[in-house]
Amino acid sequence: MKKLLALAAVTLTAPALAQEDEAPVTPSSVVAAASAEEWLAIAPEDLLVMELAPDARGNPRSVVIQLMPPPFSQPWVENIRLLARAHWWDGTSVNRVQDNYVTQWGDVTEAKSLPEGVVSPASEYVVRSWCDGHICPPLAPVGDMQRYLTSEYGRNSFLEGWPVGHFDRRQEVWPIHCYGYVGVGRGYAPDTGTGADLYTIIGQPQRHMDRNLAVVGRIIEGMEHMSSLPRGHGDLGFYTDDEAHLRVPILSVRLASEMDDAPSFEYLDTASESFAAYVAVRANRNDAFYTVPAGGVDVCSVQVPVRRVSE
Amino acid sequence: MKKLLALAAVTLTAPALAQEDEAPVTPSSVVAAASAEEWLAIAPEDLLVMELAPDARGNPRSVVIQLMPPPFSQPWVENIRLLARAHWWDGTSVNRVQDNYVTQWGDVTEAKSLPEGVVSPASEYVVRSWCDGHICPPLAPVGDMQRYLTSEYGRNSFLEGWPVGHFDRRQEVWPIHCYGYVGVGRGYAPDTGTGADLYTIIGQPQRHMDRNLAVVGRIIEGMEHMSSLPRGHGDLGFYTDDEAHLRVPILSVRLASEMDDAPSFEYLDTASESFAAYVAVRANRNDAFYTVPAGGVDVCSVQVPVRRVSE
Repeated sequence: MKKLLALAAVTLTAPALAQEDEAPVTPSSVVAAASAEEWLAIAPEDLLVMELAPDARGNPRSVVIQLMPPPFSQPWVENIRLLARAHWWDGTSVNRVQDNYVTQWGDVTEAKSLPEGVVSPASEYVVRSWCDGHICPPLAPVGDMQRYLTSEYGRNSFLEGWPVGHFDRRQEVWPIHCYGYVGVGRGYAPDTGTGADLYTIIGQPQRHMDRNLAVVGRIIEGMEHMSSLPRGHGDLGFYTDDEAHLRVPILSVRLASEMDDAPSFEYLDTASESFAAYVAVRANRNDAFYTVPAGGVDVCSVQVPVRRVSE
Repeated sequence: MKKLLALAAVTLTAPALAQEDEAPVTPSSVVAAASAEEWLAIAPEDLLVMELAPDARGNPRSVVIQLMPPPFSQPWVENIRLLARAHWWDGTSVNRVQDNYVTQWGDVTEAKSLPEGVVSPASEYVVRSWCDGHICPPLAPVGDMQRYLTSEYGRNSFLEGWPVGHFDRRQEVWPIHCYGYVGVGRGYAPDTGTGADLYTIIGQPQRHMDRNLAVVGRIIEGMEHMSSLPRGHGDLGFYTDDEAHLRVPILSVRLASEMDDAPSFEYLDTASESFAAYVAVRANRNDAFYTVPAGGVDVCSVQVPVRRVSE
């Protein structure tokens, strides 16, 4: 019975796209068949490596975060780079794990002073008039992508490698809260948070947070170290004082651009033909395991393919 | 900074619905204000209590599953009752934990014989002609619910307390794979599984599985014991032989109807006025934490309120 759900989660070892010889076309086969030019490097300035304390058996726990590129959330992303350069997170901890919601980390003492220049920026969760001036990439340029991505939360598409919501009419576009996406904790508006307290989504997408909190990145490796932590039993899933032993220490957070042995990653260009095909196949699974294709797919269920580049 | 995201996940202690005196209206306040008649008891025959081995610190781990009522998935649900009555799961284990996908449990040896009468039924993942004869409840009868629940996966609504997809035109309705929902593992079609191997969704909804696998229930208490388990590193997240120590033993699985000290639960009637108000508030969060209401909500983000009834 180990074959149960066997094809429901194909791996990157699946055969390449080969519709003509009737090998099954799966999301993974489409990704495996993408050309080298369709993969884009992630800049080392956009990679954050967080080292958690080893687990109970001594296994290391590294978490790699890709930071959000322009035009989104840049004031917070720049704060995050300042915090990393100042080694500000070293010695802080994971303080909150709320089931089907978020894992949150930062300074549990709330007393640690911030590096100079790190302040809550004005709220700009939405990019307005995004087709003015130079920011005018086509959304969903290829294939039937838009057809599959209509939603109850405005329209959805991908921009510069990231899932976004948008209202064409209002010329607004914004990043969204999918599984593994990282956002900035804050108090009540007009506070927008600095980026010193961060959370990641560990359950269903939390789309009601879109346009209300700043999405600044996504976890591209090591997500299981955040999602499998014991849940907290204080208000909102914070660990109580009795659960203080559950707060996982953060040993260090570094930008890849400042590491000697930094890992490298690429993501599949979301404006590429292969990505459009990948969306279409996700929306219409037709390999042997599936008998009824969905005919649609949630934007968060189209995880942007990311791969580690070996040295 | 512990107030971060403070109102993003309100608890059931929030004040009751009181729009006229300007107390904030939240999903929880709407639920708290529901009348006693809007809460429906869950039959003891529809409750399954799974006792996992205690955790490393000796804390007990109970998981309560509400089984799917008619008109959905009844052949598998009946199998599950037979398996529970035969104490079939006692001594089995959790065998697979795949991040952002499923936790799966059953007989890892694949050798345990099934109770008499437990066979894979014919595939009927969809209820057809559901408005024929006696099965004809209105879907989304109250308020603006349907307006908020349009989706890329057909239409969505709630039927008899459960989130469903449906095509009005085809007179089809089916249960869906939200976080914490429980389905039946299977091999390739026409195998539909017996219900002896079960999985629950521990990340984003897996809507591509709708109409392809049988949804038989949902976890209504103890979900954290399934979602926070260490991930497996074999194919598809199965624990490898080296990870055999991670397979959590299942001590027992019992129907509440066969227990002396069974817990009791109620759920909020999804055809009630309060539930319609709850959907509307989820779609339009307007308490102090939120500045931009979403204007829509994913059906899986409308978790049906369930509460434990004290003795």
